[in-house]
Amino acid sequence: MRIDDLPVRDELKGKSPYGAPQLDVPVLLNTNENPYPLPEPLVARIAERVAEAARHLNRYPDRDAVELREGLAAYLTGSTGFPVTRAQVWAANGSNEVLQQLLQTFGGPGRTALGFAPTYQMHDLISRGTGTGWSQGPRNDDFTIDLDAALAAIAEQRPDVLFVCSPNNPTGTAVPRATVLALYEAAQAVKPTLVIVDEAYIEFSHQPSLLPLLEGRPLLVVTRTMSKAFGAAGLRLGYLAADPAVVDAVQLVRLPYHLSAVTQATALAALEFTDTLLGYVERLKAERDRIVAELRAMGLDVTDSDANFVQFGTFPDTRVMWQAILDKGVLVRDNGVPGRLRVTAGTPAENDAFLDAVRTSLKELPTS
Amino acid sequence: MRIDDLPVRDELKGKSPYGAPQLDVPVLLNTNENPYPLPEPLVARIAERVAEAARHLNRYPDRDAVELREGLAAYLTGSTGFPVTRAQVWAANGSNEVLQQLLQTFGGPGRTALGFAPTYQMHDLISRGTGTGWSQGPRNDDFTIDLDAALAAIAEQRPDVLFVCSPNNPTGTAVPRATVLALYEAAQAVKPTLVIVDEAYIEFSHQPSLLPLLEGRPLLVVTRTMSKAFGAAGLRLGYLAADPAVVDAVQLVRLPYHLSAVTQATALAALEFTDTLLGYVERLKAERDRIVAELRAMGLDVTDSDANFVQFGTFPDTRVMWQAILDKGVLVRDNGVPGRLRVTAGTPAENDAFLDAVRTSLKELPTS
Repeated sequence: MRIDDLPVRDELKGKSPYGAPQLDVPVLLNTNENPYPLPEPLVARIAERVAEAARHLNRYPDRDAVELREGLAAYLTGSTGFPVTRAQVWAANGSNEVLQQLLQTFGGPGRTALGFAPTYQMHDLISRGTGTGWSQGPRNDDFTIDLDAALAAIAEQRPDVLFVCSPNNPTGTAVPRATVLALYEAAQAVKPTLVIVDEAYIEFSHQPSLLPLLEGRPLLVVTRTMSKAFGAAGLRLGYLAADPAVVDAVQLVRLPYHLSAVTQATALAALEFTDTLLGYVERLKAERDRIVAELRAMGLDVTDSDANFVQFGTFPDTRVMWQAILDKGVLVRDNGVPGRLRVTAGTPAENDAFLDAVRTSLKELPTS
Repeated sequence: MRIDDLPVRDELKGKSPYGAPQLDVPVLLNTNENPYPLPEPLVARIAERVAEAARHLNRYPDRDAVELREGLAAYLTGSTGFPVTRAQVWAANGSNEVLQQLLQTFGGPGRTALGFAPTYQMHDLISRGTGTGWSQGPRNDDFTIDLDAALAAIAEQRPDVLFVCSPNNPTGTAVPRATVLALYEAAQAVKPTLVIVDEAYIEFSHQPSLLPLLEGRPLLVVTRTMSKAFGAAGLRLGYLAADPAVVDAVQLVRLPYHLSAVTQATALAALEFTDTLLGYVERLKAERDRIVAELRAMGLDVTDSDANFVQFGTFPDTRVMWQAILDKGVLVRDNGVPGRLRVTAGTPAENDAFLDAVRTSLKELPTS
């Protein structure tokens, strides 16, 4: 049997699963992973906490993840200065599952979501996966949100859910506070709209978190992840901060006991090492800035980046440049943005390898 | 703000989250957990494998969970004698997520699922949560599936997805092979229908797994879990076996990297201890049979059980009997089946406490 012989939903026919190609290459800079392995004392602490959890593994996990949400709230409060309580925090298996729960609650059939492309492709895919209509507004040439066009799109599309990705993936663009405020107000003026500020990469940003905007805005949600700043992509721990009523609401659609006891234990161990892990973030920010500077020195068009990755171009054929860099042992990402590629900030040695690969490739191939 | 002040979907208004009450009581026999903690050598092995995984936690997990699916396939092959390959197996965070992925693929808006009530309530809830219409056929007085009524329901409802829970939760009823065959054939005669045989409790059954029915039936799916027989409810590891095309199809809707590296590592460690864990299953089967016998000796109406729990009654007011048992320190489950309660088989001492509590309560209260 092939998929198309099965009675799958019509909209799935001919589709292929989402995900970056996984190739066996010396330097992997394609999925925005943190290049620094967890420090060995944290590995030991994870083993310890997971062993504790494993002694009760025959029991269901804490369905409400109380201790973990407390820890995440403390991290948000400590890192932003804006007080957040456990009642305002919810966690799930990756921010993808957080977004899916939000869309099941506030989107779904007969409702629509709006984002600003190019942006994180899962916003679109999870919207469609939950039966939510998806529409997208444009960006300016520098990949900032075109506010006039955005306001027009809100008035025309009347979205139930609005996505603002800041810093934006795959461009690296942070969204100014004033823009988010204007979008929130404009959306609410049309109808009650859930505004999701996806801050997956905020720890790498030059600008502070938009978390304080939660004050007095019950339909604003900030989503986060431990995949990037906490160096734990393998853990799958995403979370949100919002009005406690939003947290109550997603519990109506969450699968019961969705978050395993080992995931909760591992995340709690990582939170104990927050300071160490944020030290790696500082190194990565410096490397990110170096990549931007060196690529610009090569004459490339490089998008300002507030994330742990950099968008660069422009190339007449991104596929050809992607392959040229890959041929030198470095895997970067082609996100389908015309003329542009995306590279994740790795270790200094990995970044050197990448920069050398680009330098050599530029001699072989033209830019546009 | 309260939930109903938010722009949540209409069908969520006034609802409350699914889940058994979690009370602090000496004897917890309400959620079908395995009462035996994992053996200490397995706890140590989990710590070891998770530490290994944690050293690469900065990287995304194996998106396709290749090693784990290989291990689950080997377990299914070894325990049933029916050869299953990795390509026929898929895993997710609990069988609930497996079911959700199946319904996103084969159900959804404009499609319907059919089950036979009373049955596992999540079949209904996950159907609705994915926008799939839900309808249910009746059972006989002894809680077996009423085949004539079932065939009539299939002809009338024309379901896209058919749920057969065997052993059935909350009744404990196994479904005979011939019944499943008849349901599968009848459903396919109407239209291509995904038939999901939910075998969450099969390891506790007097009858063998229906897994061999997969042969030549590309629209049959058998779902399983490590929560019960493997004593790992806290792990959240569910899986399915089906035609490889079904496995390919659910990958179109699965969230990328849905299964964490720590979950994969822990599950692999548990699979290494299969024989030990299945030894606990044998003890629980004997205890389950003892509970059935002793409750019947008290004059109660007890449903035949092939699971690690027992449905018993009948009581004029289940809430009153539930409370009477709780007052003696034992928490059982009221699943809303008129006149009946459900008790999980615990350790011999827990089961003694339960049986004493029932005996005393029966002296205080009437049966019907």
